[in-house]
Amino acid sequence: MRRFITLLTDFGTADGYVGEIKGVLLTLAPDAEVVDVTHEILPQDVDHGRLTLARVWRRFPSGTVHLVVVDPGVGSSRAALAIASDGRFLVGPDNGVLSPAVLAGGARAVALPVPAHSSATFHGRDIFAPAAAALARGEPLETLGVEATHPMIRRTPEPTRLADGALQGEVILIDRFGNAVTNLVGLRGGTIDAADRQIAVRRTYAEVAPDTPVAVVGSTGFVEVAVRDGNASRTLGLSRGSRVVLRTS
Amino acid sequence: MRRFITLLTDFGTADGYVGEIKGVLLTLAPDAEVVDVTHEILPQDVDHGRLTLARVWRRFPSGTVHLVVVDPGVGSSRAALAIASDGRFLVGPDNGVLSPAVLAGGARAVALPVPAHSSATFHGRDIFAPAAAALARGEPLETLGVEATHPMIRRTPEPTRLADGALQGEVILIDRFGNAVTNLVGLRGGTIDAADRQIAVRRTYAEVAPDTPVAVVGSTGFVEVAVRDGNASRTLGLSRGSRVVLRTS
Amino acid sequence: MRRFITLLTDFGTADGYVGEIKGVLLTLAPDAEVVDVTHEILPQDVDHGRLTLARVWRRFPSGTVHLVVVDPGVGSSRAALAIASDGRFLVGPDNGVLSPAVLAGGARAVALPVPAHSSATFHGRDIFAPAAAALARGEPLETLGVEATHPMIRRTPEPTRLADGALQGEVILIDRFGNAVTNLVGLRGGTIDAADRQIAVRRTYAEVAPDTPVAVVGSTGFVEVAVRDGNASRTLGLSRGSRVVLRTS
Repeated sequence: MRRFITLLTDFGTADGYVGEIKGVLLTLAPDAEVVDVTHEILPQDVDHGRLTLARVWRRFPSGTVHLVVVDPGVGSSRAALAIASDGRFLVGPDNGVLSPAVLAGGARAVALPVPAHSSATFHGRDIFAPAAAALARGEPLETLGVEATHPMIRRTPEPTRLADGALQGEVILIDRFGNAVTNLVGLRGGTIDAADRQIAVRRTYAEVAPDTPVAVVGSTGFVEVAVRDGNASRTLGLSRGSRVVLRTS
Repeated sequence: MRRFITLLTDFGTADGYVGEIKGVLLTLAPDAEVVDVTHEILPQDVDHGRLTLARVWRRFPSGTVHLVVVDPGVGSSRAALAIASDGRFLVGPDNGVLSPAVLAGGARAVALPVPAHSSATFHGRDIFAPAAAALARGEPLETLGVEATHPMIRRTPEPTRLADGALQGEVILIDRFGNAVTNLVGLRGGTIDAADRQIAVRRTYAEVAPDTPVAVVGSTGFVEVAVRDGNASRTLGLSRGSRVVLRTS
Repeated sequence: MRRFITLLTDFGTADGYVGEIKGVLLTLAPDAEVVDVTHEILPQDVDHGRLTLARVWRRFPSGTVHLVVVDPGVGSSRAALAIASDGRFLVGPDNGVLSPAVLAGGARAVALPVPAHSSATFHGRDIFAPAAAALARGEPLETLGVEATHPMIRRTPEPTRLADGALQGEVILIDRFGNAVTNLVGLRGGTIDAADRQIAVRRTYAEVAPDTPVAVVGSTGFVEVAVRDGNASRTLGLSRGSRVVLRTS
């Protein structure tokens, strides 16, 4: 059975950090298949990494190892984690980026030792990659470290209910297309107040004319605000944290 | 024999859409080799995707499946296609992006059914990836859908001949180096009028001094306008659609 | 044994040049594993490519072939090289980008012939990729060309010692995080003068408060100037070539 190791980082690729990690992985786990998820997480943006991981981690086959490095606290006292959850493994810093897997039922976590010779600035290469390679070779999670009972959790903020019954939420992510993803679970037929406009929630972008604002239930179940064939973030002035309100008519 | 599935999209990688697609592919076709062509097609730019596919698709071994997602009409009534052409397979939206393979002799196309449960905004994950995985597993094209007799075609515009015999064309693409790729089939020894200059067509960039405009026959046979060690688009003000004229001396 | 071919280029991916190279590699070496190191080297920046290669090339398993294309002189008389060094192979232009491997003890180099039919603008596809595929198939280096006795060498500039005993160096690279990597070999306990400030060299970024400048010994042994949770290049005005001085207290 092939074993996949995916990479999800904020390193970009140009500086060679990712190349170093790949070299370490293929040296220590020469039969593994290394798969890029992304290296374009916004630098040091733990929530961006967490939301991207949430979309991705369960889509891969059982046994996959997800190596996740978005690590502004590298070299501090934050722990290094390896996690087994829902048949997959995850390795990364204990800063909340791994929360989607930690919060799944039955997750187990261990804290990885930090070897004396490891670089204080590049745990991705010196700690996380060797642990990911060990898991890909089939070594049991418990051999990699001691149980970690309280991994750090970060959560998407919950919407609040307004006096008139509407749900107030916020934009949690702007994607590459300029779509504003909210924390409001989708409800077709409603309308969303965003950027001083009332926008109907439709089934698809294609139900409105080009250059028109539209809301849809996105592929993870959250309402997204888009501009057909355009960029909602730029056109409507939406950014992470912008307030949105969902009303059922 | 290894089966390759290449990915050519405008998704970027940071939002996790590409990660989801890779997870689906490796779950449904666990022996396939997934190869990134690019995820940096300009957002929703069908022609950019089409021209990139044109360079690439026949370079891969027979049996390769090219998964192509540049899909501004997702969720509309545009069809979803799977194509067999010149020993390769292609999967993507019926919006002209697959034209290079459709136009090859002997191409066969089927329209993929759109399952009721699929996301209205992410056919890449829910329709195209499963079809690509099925083809990589060796399932025959005809089992995936009903024959599609009139796939949409997009073409690079043809040059026109001027009264004085010169060929008038246009810039069809600016590449990463700022080179302006035209629709004029190359002819060494001629000159090209671009941005109010007459530029000789040379064999290589290196035949002119640094920072000097130069035209060459590019690696796909079209004339490109470059500035040696510089950026022709910025320096000369060339962009997609800029008019160019090729003269033989 | 699996054979890896890594790619390190300045092509970006959007234009399809990298896709063409991958297609050629997998056609000519169908059992090879193609691994992206990066395609985001700054366009035509040979030193950026060289420094990235220096980080990466020995991290991969023995037998790995590194295909390196940062090639502003394509089509000129610069030679095309294949190199065997420390158990790995490298293929690329003779412009100094391969220096890290050339300078290792026992390196051997051959000059690749330039076939008459090859494109004058895309040796990556027509010369380097076929040579890399041949090496991945196990063909001996010496069968690919004639010995090249004087490959071009580029070196990181050496620091100079000032009258007061301090070491004067310079910034050699700005990385994605805005960290300024210098050519000063690390020495914890010292201070570095950069951008009109005296900055103490610490073990980790985490030893200073957020938004504070800090210097650390980076993962390749050179001193780096950073701003914790920030961007040192932007905040301090550092760029490649900026003068820095290391003092021991």
